[in-house]
Amino acid sequence: MRVVIVLDEPRDPVNIGGVVRAMKNMGLGRLYLVRPVDFDPWRIEGVAHTGMDVIEAARVFDRLEDAIADATLALGTTARGRRVRRNYRRPREAAAEVLAAAQAGQEVALVFGREDRGLSNEELDLCSRIVVIPTDPEHRSLNLAHAVLILAYEIFLAADIELPFKEPRQTAARARREQLETLFQEIGASLRAVDFFKAHKVEPIMRTVREVAARADLDERETALFKAMAHEVRNFLARHGL
Amino acid sequence: MRVVIVLDEPRDPVNIGGVVRAMKNMGLGRLYLVRPVDFDPWRIEGVAHTGMDVIEAARVFDRLEDAIADATLALGTTARGRRVRRNYRRPREAAAEVLAAAQAGQEVALVFGREDRGLSNEELDLCSRIVVIPTDPEHRSLNLAHAVLILAYEIFLAADIELPFKEPRQTAARARREQLETLFQEIGASLRAVDFFKAHKVEPIMRTVREVAARADLDERETALFKAMAHEVRNFLARHGL
Repeated sequence: MRVVIVLDEPRDPVNIGGVVRAMKNMGLGRLYLVRPVDFDPWRIEGVAHTGMDVIEAARVFDRLEDAIADATLALGTTARGRRVRRNYRRPREAAAEVLAAAQAGQEVALVFGREDRGLSNEELDLCSRIVVIPTDPEHRSLNLAHAVLILAYEIFLAADIELPFKEPRQTAARARREQLETLFQEIGASLRAVDFFKAHKVEPIMRTVREVAARADLDERETALFKAMAHEVRNFLARHGL
Repeated sequence: MRVVIVLDEPRDPVNIGGVVRAMKNMGLGRLYLVRPVDFDPWRIEGVAHTGMDVIEAARVFDRLEDAIADATLALGTTARGRRVRRNYRRPREAAAEVLAAAQAGQEVALVFGREDRGLSNEELDLCSRIVVIPTDPEHRSLNLAHAVLILAYEIFLAADIELPFKEPRQTAARARREQLETLFQEIGASLRAVDFFKAHKVEPIMRTVREVAARADLDERETALFKAMAHEVRNFLARHGL
């Protein structure tokens, strides 16, 4: 995917390492650096734990204009809403747009400013859009890698076509009503066997059991297991002459 | 908001600092630490740049069970989908649920494992839900602060948008983790008393019980009722000299 992370004047290799790690987690691989203060691949990789391929393929530029020259869409990021009359986007909205452009084979640049002051207004002017990362208004200053992560995460989710995460459950089939009724009978019989209903009314108790079973959406295996548990209570009593 | 970030055995104050920074950016303030290897407030604050209030108010625990005892909803986080048949959520789905519980005044714990190996299956068993943070399958290992950030960001957004997450029922309060652990102990003890574990392995059985309880989202009344049922089995046996 032709999504490029552009870091403008990053000052700390530890932050670049954090950026690389976040990129790898979210499936991004292109990193451009504009005037990095300290670009030591080994220190960066030490922080990133991975991503030497990203670091080795990283390109270094003297000017932000050059780093984003090939992009059809350049998104400048900020935690502040600085100026009126701007093309602001939230990360989630931006992600959809980024994805559409990238999937059309266009290069998209996500531009992040210096750790201590972010992108200047002039740098933001170079971008097609501004993405405002939502934060607590009293604590707006995001770590550089954190800012990259949020954008990368939103793009990763937008690209994940099977987003409705499939429940890994339901390897076993959902229990049929008949199986559930047998379970309820077993539970009732065992509770009766241990004199539980001497102190509790049958009907509300068994209604609660049914409600919980319904909410849990029991499968066949679970239904059989709970039935076996209840059954074992009476088996044990029978073995001991009770 | 009663959302607590719980770090289980964090090893590096730099990571705790990153967590605090992410928390402040996303408006969270409660931090619990379970057996932190190095909890040096000044080093942490040096990384966080802010959040000394969070660090000073942080609570330290010896056991994860104690850290999440008061939570009605404990979400264990992992980047892996480890096992079939679990109560998985994506961060976005989880955020809506977290918010609903927190807004109802309940304590919600978001639990994050050690930097090098995450949460164990036993630790995940203590949680009501498991949140799987989506990543590139080939680069699943997230930085600790990055994992916290993604959850905190989703909760911040959910709170911002005021997602109308409707609680399905609200007769009794949702059970706290401590109450559920007592229930599981009672069930285990009663099954043992009737020799159920002579033919069945303890661990998978108790895991199924936990999974079903989590899916059913038991309230306090139901939890107390099931506990009484299990307890009555042993009471009965005791009355009959077994």
